[in-house]
Amino acid sequence: MITRTDVQEAATRIAGHVRTTPVARVEPDLAGPAGALWLKLEFLQHSGSFKARGAFNRLLAAAERGDLPAAGVVTASGGNAGAAVAYAARALRLPAEVYVPTTAPAVKVDKLRQLGATVLRHGSEYAEAYDAAVKRAADTGALFCHAYDQPEICAGQGTLALELLAQVGEVDTVLVAVGGGGLMAGIAAGLDGRARVVAVEPEGASALHAALAAGGPVDVPVAGVAADSLGARRVGGIAYEVAVRAGVRSVLVSDAQIVEARRLLWSSHRLAVEHGTAAAMAALNSGAYRPAAGERLAVLLCGANTDPSDLAG
Amino acid sequence: MITRTDVQEAATRIAGHVRTTPVARVEPDLAGPAGALWLKLEFLQHSGSFKARGAFNRLLAAAERGDLPAAGVVTASGGNAGAAVAYAARALRLPAEVYVPTTAPAVKVDKLRQLGATVLRHGSEYAEAYDAAVKRAADTGALFCHAYDQPEICAGQGTLALELLAQVGEVDTVLVAVGGGGLMAGIAAGLDGRARVVAVEPEGASALHAALAAGGPVDVPVAGVAADSLGARRVGGIAYEVAVRAGVRSVLVSDAQIVEARRLLWSSHRLAVEHGTAAAMAALNSGAYRPAAGERLAVLLCGANTDPSDLAG
Repeated sequence: MITRTDVQEAATRIAGHVRTTPVARVEPDLAGPAGALWLKLEFLQHSGSFKARGAFNRLLAAAERGDLPAAGVVTASGGNAGAAVAYAARALRLPAEVYVPTTAPAVKVDKLRQLGATVLRHGSEYAEAYDAAVKRAADTGALFCHAYDQPEICAGQGTLALELLAQVGEVDTVLVAVGGGGLMAGIAAGLDGRARVVAVEPEGASALHAALAAGGPVDVPVAGVAADSLGARRVGGIAYEVAVRAGVRSVLVSDAQIVEARRLLWSSHRLAVEHGTAAAMAALNSGAYRPAAGERLAVLLCGANTDPSDLAG
Repeated sequence: MITRTDVQEAATRIAGHVRTTPVARVEPDLAGPAGALWLKLEFLQHSGSFKARGAFNRLLAAAERGDLPAAGVVTASGGNAGAAVAYAARALRLPAEVYVPTTAPAVKVDKLRQLGATVLRHGSEYAEAYDAAVKRAADTGALFCHAYDQPEICAGQGTLALELLAQVGEVDTVLVAVGGGGLMAGIAAGLDGRARVVAVEPEGASALHAALAAGGPVDVPVAGVAADSLGARRVGGIAYEVAVRAGVRSVLVSDAQIVEARRLLWSSHRLAVEHGTAAAMAALNSGAYRPAAGERLAVLLCGANTDPSDLAG
């Protein structure tokens, strides 16, 4: 359970450690009768995604409690969460260990190492790397950083919502891509009714959608173009709780619609984002979310750790 | 000769036709002791570069004078200027003819056609396409849009400076890449002493640098990675006049420094910009411009009509 107060405290805590990312107001062409469309350029954040907000909040909150061990921090993620923890740890001069499966691409491992992390390859699937990271933290006393299901992680991500409100004034609806739901949870808690939250998930990785249908988090299959960033097998408990409390609606988009949205962001705005991020925009170009006349929309462009090669031409 | 008043009038004229582009404040890591570093994300502009500002100002000023012929507009450019004129003409429901040399790549011609322009291939070099465009405008009475050396074009580009000042408050130095000098002229006129202007040119295409050395515009050789956007053979007369009047300093950067700056903008900020735009940033990472302690810098990221393939990894 996280609240707006948690998010506000997080914002105070991480100020100066994270970037204030700009918003671009663009024509709501893709959004039918909408009255305004803002793109929150959060991919400009340190480490290339919003995950730096949660990582800094987790580490700095532990430091405030006197609970930041010399053993440093441990996480399991070959993606944005791992990069963010590595970045935050380096900034705070702490050692970081990042567990990834043996199947993690060399380019991601190299990136984590460039950020100063010790990378440990363990198991053939993410779940095995995760278990190893948890065990390692227990053995060494290092601070474990979950990719999305810890209150401080979620509250940190939610600082993005406070920043957005300060930048645009009023907004009716915030569209956010959901994997494990850490960002959505923080956003919904931070907005606390000031705007509705629409969660956008790929059809092939729809952990929140399934949880809302089942009445609680359940395992889902994971596949598709956005699986590298949105491919959580099960939505976080915090995310589920906040989504139900805040009445977050989940809409689904297809891989083809995600690819189209990513291409549109490049062709219309010269923004190269990752597929998981483009999913939020895809809710508009696909019509999966249809705004009302005059509705003011914000789309969170939350990460750009992507290979832009296919955007040529 | 253009003045701040011209730029202010342009800003009023084109409001609502162009996008207000955001600024991102980032750490001045690349800029030694500088006190602040803002990136003006002008590549988010319609048609992917600042050129839309000048094009709209040229067309709308002509309309105000009752001087916008049914024959529409003519320009010569396979690059950003051509795309901007095509975009503005389409938005104002005017026909546009764009002359390019026969050597223009199919991808650029296709893009102009997608923007609704009639593309005419003429001659083997830009100069021949230019001459044909001038003749065509004279024959049909169409409005000729120069890529950089017309007062309304320059004043339109300069609206970027007024927008920047409104966004950041005070800034000491604005770094701007220079090809023909239209943007620099508008910026320097718009700032009118409120900040210094540093013009950044590739060593291989340094028309302003040569003009300042020679005491007037002279032809220069043109080559290098940024030649597609900065490769003017001769700086504009307006640009030269404004540069001398405003005391604009020109610094040179190498192709390797431009490539490095472009890569840094991607690796540190997930911004994929064209080489000509990266040149402005290269003044910092190369040390070609060394800011003083506490100096507040703005770098204009003015275009992103680029193939991002080589930014992978």
